[in-house]
Amino acid sequence: MKLGCYAENQWVTGSDDGVLLRSAVDGEPIASASSAGLDFGAMLQYARQKGGPALRAMTFHQRALMLKALALHLNECKKELYALSTQTGATKSDSWIDIDGGIATMFVYSSKGRRELPNDHVLVDGPAEVISRQGTFTGQHIFVPRRGVAVQINAFNFPCWGMLEKLAPTLLAGMPVIIKPATSTAYLTELVVRKMIEANVLPPGAVQLVCGSVGDLLDRLDCQDVIAFTGSKGTADYLRKHPNVMEQSVRFTAETDSLNCSVLGPDAGAGTPEFDLYIDEVVKEMTTKAGQKCTAIRRIIVPEQHSADVVRRLSERLAAIKVGNPANPEMDMGALVSQGQREEVMERIADLQKDGTIVHGSLDNFAVADGDIKKGAYFAPVLLECADPMSATTPHSVEAFGPVATVLPYRDLESAAELVRKGGGSLVCSLFTNDNAVARELVLDCAAYHGRIMTINRDCAAESTGHGSPLPHLVHGGPGRAGGGEELGGIRGVLHYMQRTALQGSPSTLSAISNQWIRGAREISDGVHPFRKTFEELQIGETVHTAARTITLDDIEKFAELSGDKFYAHMSEPDAARNPFFEGRVAHGYFIVSAAAGLFVDPAPGPVLANYGVDNLRFAAPVNPGDTLKVRLTCKQKKWREASGYGEVYWDTEVINQDDEIVATYDVLTMVASAETMQEIESA
Amino acid sequence: MKLGCYAENQWVTGSDDGVLLRSAVDGEPIASASSAGLDFGAMLQYARQKGGPALRAMTFHQRALMLKALALHLNECKKELYALSTQTGATKSDSWIDIDGGIATMFVYSSKGRRELPNDHVLVDGPAEVISRQGTFTGQHIFVPRRGVAVQINAFNFPCWGMLEKLAPTLLAGMPVIIKPATSTAYLTELVVRKMIEANVLPPGAVQLVCGSVGDLLDRLDCQDVIAFTGSKGTADYLRKHPNVMEQSVRFTAETDSLNCSVLGPDAGAGTPEFDLYIDEVVKEMTTKAGQKCTAIRRIIVPEQHSADVVRRLSERLAAIKVGNPANPEMDMGALVSQGQREEVMERIADLQKDGTIVHGSLDNFAVADGDIKKGAYFAPVLLECADPMSATTPHSVEAFGPVATVLPYRDLESAAELVRKGGGSLVCSLFTNDNAVARELVLDCAAYHGRIMTINRDCAAESTGHGSPLPHLVHGGPGRAGGGEELGGIRGVLHYMQRTALQGSPSTLSAISNQWIRGAREISDGVHPFRKTFEELQIGETVHTAARTITLDDIEKFAELSGDKFYAHMSEPDAARNPFFEGRVAHGYFIVSAAAGLFVDPAPGPVLANYGVDNLRFAAPVNPGDTLKVRLTCKQKKWREASGYGEVYWDTEVINQDDEIVATYDVLTMVASAETMQEIESA
Repeated sequence: MKLGCYAENQWVTGSDDGVLLRSAVDGEPIASASSAGLDFGAMLQYARQKGGPALRAMTFHQRALMLKALALHLNECKKELYALSTQTGATKSDSWIDIDGGIATMFVYSSKGRRELPNDHVLVDGPAEVISRQGTFTGQHIFVPRRGVAVQINAFNFPCWGMLEKLAPTLLAGMPVIIKPATSTAYLTELVVRKMIEANVLPPGAVQLVCGSVGDLLDRLDCQDVIAFTGSKGTADYLRKHPNVMEQSVRFTAETDSLNCSVLGPDAGAGTPEFDLYIDEVVKEMTTKAGQKCTAIRRIIVPEQHSADVVRRLSERLAAIKVGNPANPEMDMGALVSQGQREEVMERIADLQKDGTIVHGSLDNFAVADGDIKKGAYFAPVLLECADPMSATTPHSVEAFGPVATVLPYRDLESAAELVRKGGGSLVCSLFTNDNAVARELVLDCAAYHGRIMTINRDCAAESTGHGSPLPHLVHGGPGRAGGGEELGGIRGVLHYMQRTALQGSPSTLSAISNQWIRGAREISDGVHPFRKTFEELQIGETVHTAARTITLDDIEKFAELSGDKFYAHMSEPDAARNPFFEGRVAHGYFIVSAAAGLFVDPAPGPVLANYGVDNLRFAAPVNPGDTLKVRLTCKQKKWREASGYGEVYWDTEVINQDDEIVATYDVLTMVASAETMQEIESA
Repeated sequence: MKLGCYAENQWVTGSDDGVLLRSAVDGEPIASASSAGLDFGAMLQYARQKGGPALRAMTFHQRALMLKALALHLNECKKELYALSTQTGATKSDSWIDIDGGIATMFVYSSKGRRELPNDHVLVDGPAEVISRQGTFTGQHIFVPRRGVAVQINAFNFPCWGMLEKLAPTLLAGMPVIIKPATSTAYLTELVVRKMIEANVLPPGAVQLVCGSVGDLLDRLDCQDVIAFTGSKGTADYLRKHPNVMEQSVRFTAETDSLNCSVLGPDAGAGTPEFDLYIDEVVKEMTTKAGQKCTAIRRIIVPEQHSADVVRRLSERLAAIKVGNPANPEMDMGALVSQGQREEVMERIADLQKDGTIVHGSLDNFAVADGDIKKGAYFAPVLLECADPMSATTPHSVEAFGPVATVLPYRDLESAAELVRKGGGSLVCSLFTNDNAVARELVLDCAAYHGRIMTINRDCAAESTGHGSPLPHLVHGGPGRAGGGEELGGIRGVLHYMQRTALQGSPSTLSAISNQWIRGAREISDGVHPFRKTFEELQIGETVHTAARTITLDDIEKFAELSGDKFYAHMSEPDAARNPFFEGRVAHGYFIVSAAAGLFVDPAPGPVLANYGVDNLRFAAPVNPGDTLKVRLTCKQKKWREASGYGEVYWDTEVINQDDEIVATYDVLTMVASAETMQEIESA
């Protein structure tokens, strides 16, 4: 069977025989992969002219709902995906990480996209910047989708998750994608892409797939394109310095394998819960996906006084691991991806032996509980120990991409941190200790070398997601050997596919561009109170200037009585006057905002359904008895909630006194009904 | 005179004759630059072992105050700096951009550092991420300083600003710097560095200076180092693909010259204020620094119907520009940096003539009002016009780095946007229009190609900072030809010198690491109300659980009366019940927070001086008459205000009802006095 490529909205196959892909389990042919004959220039043009504009025409929320539809459809197809995944050597729990993990990432991006991004096309970044005295000229950063194509080159070990974790933030950003899976497991990626296309929610050109070589694709990229790569450091550097990639400053991000470590705290000796948790975690990391994870623990950094215990316990546990046919539920660990990969792992272990000794396992004598070692790429766990890790080089520089790790004993916390940093930059480090002072010291000494650090103790272990699992909420990537890139991290991962631009101009112009009212911009009023307008009718900039109210001492007394807040600054003239911020009794801040609401609220039933919050409230000047307050309330931002019948409306609010001094500024957050919802309420 | 290099806390000179630097004004020798004999490995080690630890031991606010001290000292030395600056060919107003602009950048970073960053060592990035059901395992991103050295390679055109705009965010981040100025104007950079060292506020190793070649410096960088480069695209690419820079994934950011454009809107014909503003801006951009600005306008994109007017008006204005000795205040424009640069500019104009015609100025016949054209690198403005800019290539790809620009007429807004984008990525674009719809369309069509876009109309022009001026508040950089990098942008520019790390663990552990209380972390209480504790005494996590209060209908009625807020959901049972969020009359949100304050406030005079604001207030469930509320208030974050006598304290606040349901969550912001301030108040 030839794997399909999905180009210009149709499935095509390469024009030559391509590369034969074999099962990790029994070595039988599964499919062949070829992209020969594909017109990469036409694919890029199709993405730029069809996919990009179609995605950019959608709002963030519409794209987020598209991700949800894709994830729901993939959920329906899991049985088929799991069956094929076994051929990569993955056990059922390995496949769970790859398949369920990938689908979960889509769901998280869908949900974060709707919760954390506007239902709009432009993402406003940070507050407006004050860059002029009178405020007639102001600054505002925005993000817009890059107008190119994201080329996403994935590794063999997670053919589903690896693709989806890059795809989800990119589509959410509004950028089309060309997917290029690692050839050896491309058959699973191809099946997932087929299912996504079947779901029929992707606009033409949003997603294309290349199984096989990328041909002259890189020569055709331009300044709006992005390459996101996961794989070896060597390939990352090769791509990064491609002449056209450099010439066009193509945005490039890499996530490469690294020599991740896990540290056992000095407090966590045998008998402590943290010791047991540590042993569990190391065994899990060595054997999940047969150790073929870029986040797997390669360096086991333990206090020298506990090192013998660690070696003994790990050896016992690893000896009990059943290696064999991943389809057999009795097996703990499946196969490596290929015979070639097994040879590669063995060579790297030989390198590691320069500085370390094998204390468990063997290169030439290991048991397979179910399977043919000649046909399947089986291999059993190997544990090494290094006596002098501070002067050793190989444990900190050689990665055996399989069920292999080295125990490195440390003397004190400072030298533990030094060993950690010898990895030269890693994706993740974990730390097992019940002493928060130890955690703080080690994390602060090592954070700059890591994209993620997990600290485990008895309180959090039960809910831990584990050392090796990147989460969509948290950044994945790391400096140095880990490639210097960053992915995921919630909305942070979306921004890699957008361009940040600083805008300067009049507040009215910037408001028109960003769809967000900026202080100083033109106010709109047609005489109708904006609380009487439906979500659709409300315009950004609609403003009400309220009547004035004079605050009396009696008001303050009554408010103190009603709220129970009898803080001295409200109650006692001499005490208040001794406070460096006040000259005498002041009104409660909460009374100022309550009285402001009394001034701006339109009381009768109408489209404004509820005030659900307040943001950025700052009291700028004290209010004393006799001061007269009035309020400006301006429609700042609208965020329609798809399929809810109402939207969120933010109101920029300013309370000023009789001297036109600003007393308080804040954003009032309300829910505002659509016209249709209003009809429903009125006819209820 | 040999320029000094500042290495390992002392001034040294190169061991060979080095490169002779000549005045742009009269060609006389000024100094020689050599770094021969410098031990770059030792310099890096000194920065890593002395400068880095010393800077990291300071808080963000302490570093910000150090920047202020440097800026104040440089302000004292301006006369000397201006005098030397003339030798680079700069007029007084050119020097103002370079020298005062550089010092202002230091002040802005000092002020932003204190206002927007914690007075601490770790920067918390975003809210805690919910990654477990029970909340015992949580996520939090932090930023810590990178543990390496920032190598900052600057361009010849802004020897002061170019250095300081990179230096300020880096020192604020807590990272030491090795400065490498462009050799041709290194004498001015060297003088500024001498003044900074004189100020005696920099810890040893924080700043070092290399005038001359960087030798083997790049071969010695590692995964914690950063290169920030400004200059030509060719040099940027050469540095980026340096084998060791790639091998170590050294963080690299480049800002390169680009073919920036300015667009005249279709509405802005002769006779409109925007037309006049446009002519002023183009002339200013062509002649400031004799056009040697990476942000200068190179492409003058105008409606074809207005193109003849633009050419005529620009030619008139350029003809009046007096070129000559920059020390002569009568001159409008000084010299290019060198004779070599003048030859380079002339060659590029010849390239531009392939697609365009010179409509003002000349390559071989131009007037110098004061100065010797044989000795000084004088050159007069040249304006070209291109008849068919859509098919032309040179105006969009050839940069003459001098007082040179090309008029490109456009037919409609869509083709204007296409011409803009043909620049292949620029630092900045400006747009002159009084039509916000035009501004919105063009900005959204072109933002992805730019780091900054300025829109000018009659309302904001008077306060505009100009097309060519990067501001410390706004990002500077751009995709593609502009190098693909980003600098400045306020605190965004600081983060380039820090590492973002995702932390996972128990809320208590993460609070201990980040110095910020996270929901679910351990609460502290010694029985003393935390409002009775001074800033020093207060600990992160100190918590008060209040007594309970039952909310009555009478409370709601009274609150409505006192505040004036008679919104129907509080006043009418049947109306409230028809609201989709409520089942009957509800308490005012502002009453809930007022009553909460009544519960948690400790009324007598004490260290808590004022509540100055509230953040992130969200009402999570309605409160009906009969509901009983209580409050948890926990010290979340402390931010000491240097030299003020008090600090900001954030309190994580949660209001819950009788069913332990969360009713409202928010942060209360207070000012809390130190023990010393308390004594002063009490003895007052």
